[in-house]
Order: sequence, then structure tokens, then C-alpha cells
Amino acid sequence: MRVTTIHGPRDIRLEERPEPAIAEPTDAIIKVTTSCICGSDLWPYRGENPITPGDPIGHELIGVVEEVGAKVRSFKQGDFVIVPFCHCDNTCAHCRAGMQSACVNLGVTQSGQGEYARVTQADGSLVATDGMPDDELIPSLLALTDVMATGWHAAVAAGVQPGHTVVVVGDGAVGLSGVLAAAQMGAERVIAMSRHEPRQEIARAFGATDVVAERGKEGEARIADLTDGVGADAVLECVGTDGAMKTAFTVARPGSTVGFVGVPHGVELPVRRMFQKNVGLAGGMAPVRRYLPDLLDRVLSGAIDPGKVFDLTLPMAESAEGYRAMDERRAIKVLLRP
Amino acid sequence: MRVTTIHGPRDIRLEERPEPAIAEPTDAIIKVTTSCICGSDLWPYRGENPITPGDPIGHELIGVVEEVGAKVRSFKQGDFVIVPFCHCDNTCAHCRAGMQSACVNLGVTQSGQGEYARVTQADGSLVATDGMPDDELIPSLLALTDVMATGWHAAVAAGVQPGHTVVVVGDGAVGLSGVLAAAQMGAERVIAMSRHEPRQEIARAFGATDVVAERGKEGEARIADLTDGVGADAVLECVGTDGAMKTAFTVARPGSTVGFVGVPHGVELPVRRMFQKNVGLAGGMAPVRRYLPDLLDRVLSGAIDPGKVFDLTLPMAESAEGYRAMDERRAIKVLLRP
Repeated sequence: MRVTTIHGPRDIRLEERPEPAIAEPTDAIIKVTTSCICGSDLWPYRGENPITPGDPIGHELIGVVEEVGAKVRSFKQGDFVIVPFCHCDNTCAHCRAGMQSACVNLGVTQSGQGEYARVTQADGSLVATDGMPDDELIPSLLALTDVMATGWHAAVAAGVQPGHTVVVVGDGAVGLSGVLAAAQMGAERVIAMSRHEPRQEIARAFGATDVVAERGKEGEARIADLTDGVGADAVLECVGTDGAMKTAFTVARPGSTVGFVGVPHGVELPVRRMFQKNVGLAGGMAPVRRYLPDLLDRVLSGAIDPGKVFDLTLPMAESAEGYRAMDERRAIKVLLRP
Repeated sequence: MRVTTIHGPRDIRLEERPEPAIAEPTDAIIKVTTSCICGSDLWPYRGENPITPGDPIGHELIGVVEEVGAKVRSFKQGDFVIVPFCHCDNTCAHCRAGMQSACVNLGVTQSGQGEYARVTQADGSLVATDGMPDDELIPSLLALTDVMATGWHAAVAAGVQPGHTVVVVGDGAVGLSGVLAAAQMGAERVIAMSRHEPRQEIARAFGATDVVAERGKEGEARIADLTDGVGADAVLECVGTDGAMKTAFTVARPGSTVGFVGVPHGVELPVRRMFQKNVGLAGGMAPVRRYLPDLLDRVLSGAIDPGKVFDLTLPMAESAEGYRAMDERRAIKVLLRP
């Protein structure tokens, strides 16, 4: 099959690899109908995460079940499924507590930007739609595999409640999804920190009531003004850098929580400041499967349209161009068709 | 008046100082009937916090109102009052949100281990009893000014719920108070980490169902065993050192929260681990005033007896010996009578 691989920093190639096969009786093989590039794929792309040259890349996909292992009961060939980027049995103690991203049988999609992918723990991981979804729903269904669920997790971790004033740090696809999540949860004000016009527009479409274009100290001062010096009731940190985290703690009001979902790179948590301000931190890798049924309902009912974060569609053969476009911030998020 | 002062590491003296006077119309002057030494007083005592030589020390006291400023409406001379170590107006945005330790008019008791102390924002800070309390209630009422409320805050921050398995790291007076708090909140199992026999006894009296005497990796392994490898539903970190914090994150189950109330000294938060495990951190300086009315009811009804943490009573003239006893762990917590 053809699959996107990474050979080094800024070296993405489409190559031939053997099709994945059932390795465990709980596996399923999915024929990928649509996939995409994740902001977190840019960490290895930029040389900031270690890689094994030639490894397939990509963990966000939707598609059709091609084959299932002998123990898979809930899915069969031909089912259209949404594949959470992290696979789980959905029965262990951590899954039952809603923390599927800590499943004792955790797996992660490996060749998502390819023609086929193997999903472990298929019964626990997958969620099927009724028949083949309409074309216009595809981007939003694809967004559920990671980015929308991750933004949702940031809002859950930050404890967003109806009536809250919420600040979202980061205007990537996750940050924008966080804006949408906070608005869905009833936040009265959602302040998006974004200095890029097209992203500001999506943020507003997703429910941002205010946009702060300034960054660092200036941005923090603007938010202090907007909140009468009190600070935000909840803050979503959707970047993963030290600067973003510092801003998050600065704009959070005492007693609130920073929900963080950006994989931390070079972050030093200001523990004394957290103590003095009583500002907590919660979050991590999103338990996508936990949120998936609810988010699917919201997409199917038209309540949310998270696929708006895709602003560039390419054939998979041009995935390298997709990476370049995201790296250079010419695209927010790139959708790939085989 | 006579007051305990600190002149340098391990240099505590009882000295004469002018009595505090009303400085703002919202102040009250309290005649101290009972005070005590806080675990956090040991930081400057051990030279780990900067000091100004000769400064009065002590922030936990109960007593009788001696004088009130012109704007104080709710208290009068002769009232018996409990004095939260942090003073607050109880009307600002942070106070109304239950975060009185971030009050815009925050104050802290300065000469608590003396004959008189000034309380700022008296109307917001103080809580009075009906008449003079019985002698046997004094230790428990004194415990409400800081240590019991701080243990309670750890449990609130950690999100303790009925049925939870809770681990308490630290067997100082705050840790023991945390055990009591977790039990009061309905935790089914409360695992106290303590290797000191007298403290283990108090932990059990406060509701600990299990005691783990081992520390570090051995202690962590014991807790993994006790929780079937799942980890604790909530963890209270009541020490403030890096080792205690590491243990707290290790024994916390994915999706849980570490509530921390020990002033952090040399703590480096394991941000990637927190992310990977989805274990949050919340807490800080306790908003004592928020919990005070409820905790007072519990003391008066006999539901809790937090004064058990006092295992040595000395006249204030011997406060230096009290510090030595706590420093050398001969005493858990020292009560001082004028």
C-alpha cells in the first residue's frame, strides 16, 4: 500500500509498505477513506521529537472496516467507522473511569496517512455511523478522531461551566476546537488569543466572543482588562510551549484550572506561582473514545461543525506539501484523500 | 507585650514589643488566649526562608476581641473569635468565588505567638463563637485557624468524593488533618503514609483505613498493591518537597488530581508525566475563611476533633523549646498558652 512516511526533519515521503495485517484477534484493519495531518505531527517534522527514519506517520483517520480479528464482535467488514487516535479496550479500570487514553491495552494508530491502518482493541475503540455518511459530514467526522476531542478534553479538564469566562491560548486546530467546546459547554464569554485573521474568523464562527491578537505581556494585559482584573474562570492551553503555559497561568483567576492538551515541549511549571494563586493544572492526552458518542451526536444533529478547521485538502500523494503548508502556517489543518 | 520573635536559624526569642494598634478602621486587635507553632514556621526556623531578624512570628491564634476599628460592624470587645491566618474582606470577586486566600485585601497574622495580634479586614476575616468556649474545645478551635482548614483544602483541591480511595502523603499536622478531611468527605479508604508510630495512631483515629510506613519507591509499590495497580482516586500532598510530590504523582491514578498544600520547596513538577498520565495538580494557600463556618459546626457537634494534632502544650515563654521539639520531631504540633 501507499503510506506517508517520515525520514528526518522536513523529509516526508509517500512510499510503498506492506498492508497491515491482523496481529491480534481483537484487531481490525481499516481502509482509510480520509485522513489528515495533526499539529503534533509537526513536532517530529521539525526535528523536535525523535523518529525512526522510514516510519509511517499519521494517527487521524476515518474509513471502512476491511477485516476484523476473530474476537471482534461489534464491527464487520463494510462498517464505516471513526477511529480514535488512541485505541482502548473500554473495559479496564481506567477506561471505566473515563480515562481511555490510559487504557491498560492502549494503542495508537500508526499508519494513518496511508491506505490502510490497523486498529487494536477494535471493539473498545471504534464507533460506527449508520451507513456511509454524507460527503459534507466527512471533515467534521474526521475532526472527532483527535482534534475536536482534544479541544473538548481541554475544556473538560479546565472545568468549563455555563456562564464562565474562558480564555483559549493557541489558535491552531486544537485551540479552535477548544473555543467550540467551551461555547458548547455554555461559557458566556470565550476569549480566543489569535493574531491570524483566518483563524480569528473560525474562532468567531465557533463561538469566540472576543479575540485578543496581542501575545505575551500585552495579551495578558488585554485579558486583565477584559475580565476587570479578575482573570478567566477557566483557561485552555492548546500549544504546549513554555510561553503559552506562562500566559495561561497569568490570565487564570485564583481558584481556576488551566486545562492543557498541547504536548509539553520545554515547559517549566511555575509551581510557587500556582501555589500562591491557587491555579491548578489538569489535562493530557485526550480520552477520545469517552467523548466520541456525544460529539458524534452533536455533529450529526448539526450542533457543531468542527470540520471547519480544515482549510486545505490534498491528495495523499501530496502529503509532503501538506506538512509544508502547516509548518509555514499557510494552512491550519490539512485533510488528505487517498 | 511579650511576643515570640525570630532572629536567625534556630534562634527564637521571647521579647518585648509595642502592642499592635488599630491602623485601619477595618482592623481589630485580638488578645491571644491560645496560639501555636505551624509546620511552615519551621521553614524560616531552619533557614530555608529569608527572615528579618527580630521579626515577630506566628500566625495561628484564637482569642478575645480587645478593640475594633471604626468601620468594624460585626464584632465588639469581648467576643471570642477564631482568626484565620489569612485575613480577607470576604466581599471581593475572589472571596465570593471561595478563594479568600487571594483576597484583594489579603492580610496575614503577624504576631500570633504573642499576647496581642492585629487582624485586618476584621468583619470579613473573623468568626465568633457563642460566648466563651469550653476548655476542652480550645485545641480543636485553634486547629481551625490554619492546619485543619489546610488539610481540608487539600482534600477539596484533590476532588475527594464519597467512595474514593485517597492517599495522604505527609504525616505532619496538615497531613493528619487531610486524613480527617478525606474521611469526613466520605472516602472509603484513606491510606496514610506515615512511619512514626504516634502519628499513625492519630491517623487511624482520624479515619485512616491503611497506613503505609515505607517511603519512596517501596511506599509507592505498597500503594500500587493496595489499589490493585490502579492507583488512588485522589492524592493529598501535604509536605512540599520534591520527593513527596513525586510520590504523589506516582500513586495517583490516571484522571485524578493531586491536591497540594505544602508550600513548595525545591519542587520540579513532572509536566510530561502529568500529561501522559492525565494527573492534575490543584491547591495552594488555603482559603481558611471559606471553610471556617462548616468546620466550626463540625467541631461544636463533635463530628471532628482536629485538636488531637497537638501533642505538646507549653507556656509561650518556652516557645523556643516548642520550635526545637517540632524541628526534632519530638512533637507533632505545639500549643502555646500565654
